[in-house]
Amino acid sequence: MVTSSRRLDRTFGALADATRRAILGQLAHGDATVGELARPFRVSRPAISKHLRVLEQAGLVRRAREGRVSRCALDAAALREAAEWVERYRAFWSGRLDALARYVERTRS
Amino acid sequence: MVTSSRRLDRTFGALADATRRAILGQLAHGDATVGELARPFRVSRPAISKHLRVLEQAGLVRRAREGRVSRCALDAAALREAAEWVERYRAFWSGRLDALARYVERTRS
Repeated sequence: MVTSSRRLDRTFGALADATRRAILGQLAHGDATVGELARPFRVSRPAISKHLRVLEQAGLVRRAREGRVSRCALDAAALREAAEWVERYRAFWSGRLDALARYVERTRS
Repeated sequence: MVTSSRRLDRTFGALADATRRAILGQLAHGDATVGELARPFRVSRPAISKHLRVLEQAGLVRRAREGRVSRCALDAAALREAAEWVERYRAFWSGRLDALARYVERTRS
C-alpha cells in the first residue's frame, strides 16, 4: 500500500523539475505521443522518457500503447492532494487570520 | 538571479520528503530550536540539520542565532508560488469547466 505521505513525496518530487512541469503543461492541452512531447525541449528522447517514468510513477501521467506509439495523458488527480497540503499554509502567506485559526483548529490534536 | 522556475524546483524538492513537511507543520505552531524540531523524529540531529538546510535553501525556513542556539521560523511565502502553480490544474481534478476555460485562456499564447 502506498501511503498518502509516500504519494505526496512522489508528487512533489515529480513537480521539482521544470521539464516535468512543462510536460504536464503540454498534456493539459491534450494527449500527446512521446515524440510530440520531446519536440519543444532541448533534451534527448531517452531523457524525456525518463521524466515521463517519474511522472507515471507519481500517477500524474498515464501512458497507453496505440500500435507502435504510446500516447500520454494528464492525470491530475494526484495534484489534488498536493494542492490540499499546500493550501493549509495559505494563512501564513496571506495573513488571513480566519485561515490561520482553521489551521490551528485542525492540527490541535 | 534565481528564476521563478528554479525557485519552484527548490520548493517542490523541499516538499518531497515527509520529515521536511512535518518540520514545516511543527514550525506552523511557532518558532523552534533545532533540538526541539529533532525531538519528535526518529532521526539524528545531523539528519534534521540537513533537512533544515534544504528547507532554508528553498526559502521555507529562516534560522536566527540566539547565543548558542539557533531558532527556526516558518517562511511560507515560497509556498504561495507553489500553490499558484498547482492551482492552475484545479480544473483537471475538479471537472470545473470555468476553471478549465481560464487555464486555456491563460496559456493560449
